[in-house]
Amino acid sequence: MGRWEPGARERLQAAALDLYVERGFEQTTAADIAASVGLTERTFFRYFADKREVLFHGQERLTELVLEGVAAAPADATPLAVVVSALLGTAEFFPDDRREHSRRRQTVISAHPALQERELLKMAGLAATLAGALRERGAPEPAATLAAQSGATVFGVAFGQWIAEGETRSLADIQREVVTELLSMSSGAR
Amino acid sequence: MGRWEPGARERLQAAALDLYVERGFEQTTAADIAASVGLTERTFFRYFADKREVLFHGQERLTELVLEGVAAAPADATPLAVVVSALLGTAEFFPDDRREHSRRRQTVISAHPALQERELLKMAGLAATLAGALRERGAPEPAATLAAQSGATVFGVAFGQWIAEGETRSLADIQREVVTELLSMSSGAR
Repeated sequence: MGRWEPGARERLQAAALDLYVERGFEQTTAADIAASVGLTERTFFRYFADKREVLFHGQERLTELVLEGVAAAPADATPLAVVVSALLGTAEFFPDDRREHSRRRQTVISAHPALQERELLKMAGLAATLAGALRERGAPEPAATLAAQSGATVFGVAFGQWIAEGETRSLADIQREVVTELLSMSSGAR
Repeated sequence: MGRWEPGARERLQAAALDLYVERGFEQTTAADIAASVGLTERTFFRYFADKREVLFHGQERLTELVLEGVAAAPADATPLAVVVSALLGTAEFFPDDRREHSRRRQTVISAHPALQERELLKMAGLAATLAGALRERGAPEPAATLAAQSGATVFGVAFGQWIAEGETRSLADIQREVVTELLSMSSGAR
């Protein structure tokens, strides 16, 4: 076995999340995930480096959307304005019909420090990529890193609200409100 | 063996950093670290949960300093002003004579994703503690989390400058400058 299977990646991802929610992350092996969709452990490892990565696939597309958001900002935009453009780009990755999936995924991540660590590392990598894109547009340091990290902060807070029980606003709308809050907080401290 | 040894924790920490720098983190075992200061592996695990934790001991004191900084802020301070007070509290944990140690430690952490993950988790925990302290003072959400995360951003950027080759300014001075930069960036984006 171990051959390429059409749709295998997506089936493995869906099966992994189901098993992590039902049985627990620690109690689920790569072989369990593969077996639940009729595949072998070897096939699992063809698609994912480990049991954690299966929850993080798709990050490349998120990074692309961030960079497209950066490119869409006017040339004379301030670093923070570029970051806002990048943030709104990420909303496409999280349409409303993905909210329930994101909620379930977050439940699993929040329960496991090892997954939280991986998530933080991925987010830090995304913020570093964003800071690099800002420097390429001519933003100096530390402004580039401060703006990129502030973007990560806004994203984290907005995402937390987006997946909260009963929330109905879109991620883009929430992000706009959180940016406004961040700016008003900063101006209040002067 | 495995008994409590006076100063064992500090000796193990110093030995671990030396070995991680010289030999590499992956190539060093807990037994190696213990043996290099005449202790057993069992003693090592009495003080540290694993090979990673040995680089993170002392975090409790850092958390205390942050909370003392929060308590030192005037009752009517804005969330961001409280965070600045908390940040300046951390400078006591990083006096200039610790800079070289911090540089070596960062070299090891930067070279290993597993250590970066742990560091990010620790910093996220500290930011969450700070946000909790702000809420206890009456700050609403998302202001409390935004302010606490902005504090973590300032700390990260300032710490990176503090350990840069040739840097001589104190961490407190750098933090003040980075806060000013963050505020000017935010006001420019309005």
